[in-house]
Amino acid sequence: MAKIIAINAGSSSLKFQLFEMPSEDVITKGLIERIGLKDSVFNITVNGEKIQEVTDIPDHEVAVKMLLDKLTSLRIIHSLDEIEGIGHRIVHGGEAFNDSVVITDEVLSKIEELSELAPLHNPAHVLGIKAFMHVLPNVQAIAVFDTSFHQTMPESSFLYSLPFEYYQKYGIRKYGFHGTSHKYVSQRAAKLLGRPIEQLRLISCHLGNGVSIAAIQGGKSIDTSMGFTPLAGVTMGTRSGNIDPAIIPFIMEKTNKTADEVIEILNKKSGMLAISGFSSDLRDIEIQANQGNERAKLALDVFSNGIHKYIGSYAARMYGVDAIIFTAGIGENSDVIRENVLKGLEFMGVYWDPALNKVRGEEAFINYPHSPVKVIVIPTNEEVMIARDVVRLAN
Amino acid sequence: MAKIIAINAGSSSLKFQLFEMPSEDVITKGLIERIGLKDSVFNITVNGEKIQEVTDIPDHEVAVKMLLDKLTSLRIIHSLDEIEGIGHRIVHGGEAFNDSVVITDEVLSKIEELSELAPLHNPAHVLGIKAFMHVLPNVQAIAVFDTSFHQTMPESSFLYSLPFEYYQKYGIRKYGFHGTSHKYVSQRAAKLLGRPIEQLRLISCHLGNGVSIAAIQGGKSIDTSMGFTPLAGVTMGTRSGNIDPAIIPFIMEKTNKTADEVIEILNKKSGMLAISGFSSDLRDIEIQANQGNERAKLALDVFSNGIHKYIGSYAARMYGVDAIIFTAGIGENSDVIRENVLKGLEFMGVYWDPALNKVRGEEAFINYPHSPVKVIVIPTNEEVMIARDVVRLAN
Repeated sequence: MAKIIAINAGSSSLKFQLFEMPSEDVITKGLIERIGLKDSVFNITVNGEKIQEVTDIPDHEVAVKMLLDKLTSLRIIHSLDEIEGIGHRIVHGGEAFNDSVVITDEVLSKIEELSELAPLHNPAHVLGIKAFMHVLPNVQAIAVFDTSFHQTMPESSFLYSLPFEYYQKYGIRKYGFHGTSHKYVSQRAAKLLGRPIEQLRLISCHLGNGVSIAAIQGGKSIDTSMGFTPLAGVTMGTRSGNIDPAIIPFIMEKTNKTADEVIEILNKKSGMLAISGFSSDLRDIEIQANQGNERAKLALDVFSNGIHKYIGSYAARMYGVDAIIFTAGIGENSDVIRENVLKGLEFMGVYWDPALNKVRGEEAFINYPHSPVKVIVIPTNEEVMIARDVVRLAN
Repeated sequence: MAKIIAINAGSSSLKFQLFEMPSEDVITKGLIERIGLKDSVFNITVNGEKIQEVTDIPDHEVAVKMLLDKLTSLRIIHSLDEIEGIGHRIVHGGEAFNDSVVITDEVLSKIEELSELAPLHNPAHVLGIKAFMHVLPNVQAIAVFDTSFHQTMPESSFLYSLPFEYYQKYGIRKYGFHGTSHKYVSQRAAKLLGRPIEQLRLISCHLGNGVSIAAIQGGKSIDTSMGFTPLAGVTMGTRSGNIDPAIIPFIMEKTNKTADEVIEILNKKSGMLAISGFSSDLRDIEIQANQGNERAKLALDVFSNGIHKYIGSYAARMYGVDAIIFTAGIGENSDVIRENVLKGLEFMGVYWDPALNKVRGEEAFINYPHSPVKVIVIPTNEEVMIARDVVRLAN
């Protein structure tokens, strides 16, 4: 029995989840927000009860100290010695990491180096790692990368059709993201199907604020919709997904903006937010669409179409598909999107049951029993994957 | 009986084809090159014989005069009065033209206005139109647009997930290209299938220097791979197709280039040329791949994968497909690419015959007779579509 803490550090936040392993029971979880700002907020759930405290937390190290203090003062654990491992979620592992690793000085510098590819994320992860290094120097820490699951993609999937030196010199290629989630749900799907993952062709649809679709063959990612950055692929809440690249200089000229400013708009003011004109939140959009708002309906159509077409393309990529998986906020909860995405796929063996499709937020098959292609809703759990990797890699 | 001339004017070139209508017999065809440069070249085919003349042709009007002189002096026609209509190929018709039209002053200004969306093409087309207006002022001229066939796309296909005003103010949307070709082969496919086009779901693969795939339902384009410009979609000879938009500022910073310069690279130095490292010509690449060149093989893989995945996605888009069409240089001639593209599509009802697939440059079914989805090679003929539209719209 070991207690493992899974950490997701942002630039001004720190998300945590404490596991009992190998049972995988969640002992506690919470979120520290507004680190480095006035009125930071510490949220923690103890025995199902949410506790909140507002105070000033100047940096990540103070945040980590406060977290550890709370764990003992709230009697969640008796002593810090019980914590046997820390798992850090890292967005970008580049080509350097095709699996989770024990964090050494060398690994830490590599993660820092990769900040160029994930300027909003990796520097924040480094803050989180360093804070734990200072406060719990003797507890082993593991890095778990969003990109590593996709490192199995063949060159024909990850290479852009750009001058070769852009890949060799600058690392411009498709990396893919949400890897920990795709890995979790694909392994879970194999279990639920009762078949060895080596024999399966799966399409995993991670539909949340970010959306990524992955083609997973024999347990390995062979293609995914996100690219060099998480902007690529399908329409998302606020992200445009793929567009004709020639649009960028056109917008720059028309609006007198820099390329960086345009990409910022593509990341933050595009997607369903732009089409609907009022929200990036699918729940709001579904309500308005039901009330007849045309642009809300259009946003749903564009969003669903993008995913629907990726399913067709990845089925082609794998010469067929055994199961389609829906996960993350939208994938787990929106029967409307699942219906739109699955509609008309009978030609490729997908027969889904509208009654079963009503499910929300729990594991369920939503296909008819006779359907050659199974369709499964699986709530994702990136944190438990992190905890598992900590146990697996522990010395 | 009427003689109709189909014209494709470039900035320094003029391609022509003279038809006898309604028989659609080609009386002559040719190409004038290097207009406005020293040593312009006039090429014309008379009774199967190619004639070439090198001389200085200062502008499009002189080129047109020379062409008409040749038609009579080479006794191809007795008198210019026999020419009853001129059809001009126009790359960009924006949202203004959903069909071919008789060219009026108003139409001409609109085509000029649309130069902003096709700066390399529309101004050249205008030169061609004006030259004929001056030389043959009494012959009716028709504009046939590459974009008009795709104007039937629904909003959910043509709208990017970008701020709505980019569409409303600047016309940023998916237009699609190669429309005349997609229209020709889809109509031809319906004839060959002996079925009303209204009942058919077709995927048309125009694979040439430029590549575009179209989903054609009931004779109407409902989606296509090219976008705001012909850069979008799949990997082509020298074009990158879609990439993560965030790559553009990254390349700009790394190589100290402007956005326009990067787009120029994406248009002219990317695609199979960049991946193979030596050629944008598929024939060269196939030869090198056969001799074991790894990057040539990779270029073939990337190129084929892109098209293969679009077929899957468009089959999903139309809830199945009745026939897949291959056209243009590569589509008509490369059995290797057709094989790569079609491989493994049995799951969606595509059963193709490797022996029949050997066909080059002629109309042929290449599916097994029992295949639910038919696969047809159809040489494209944009010129005859132009001539047909001239006849159809003639007063």
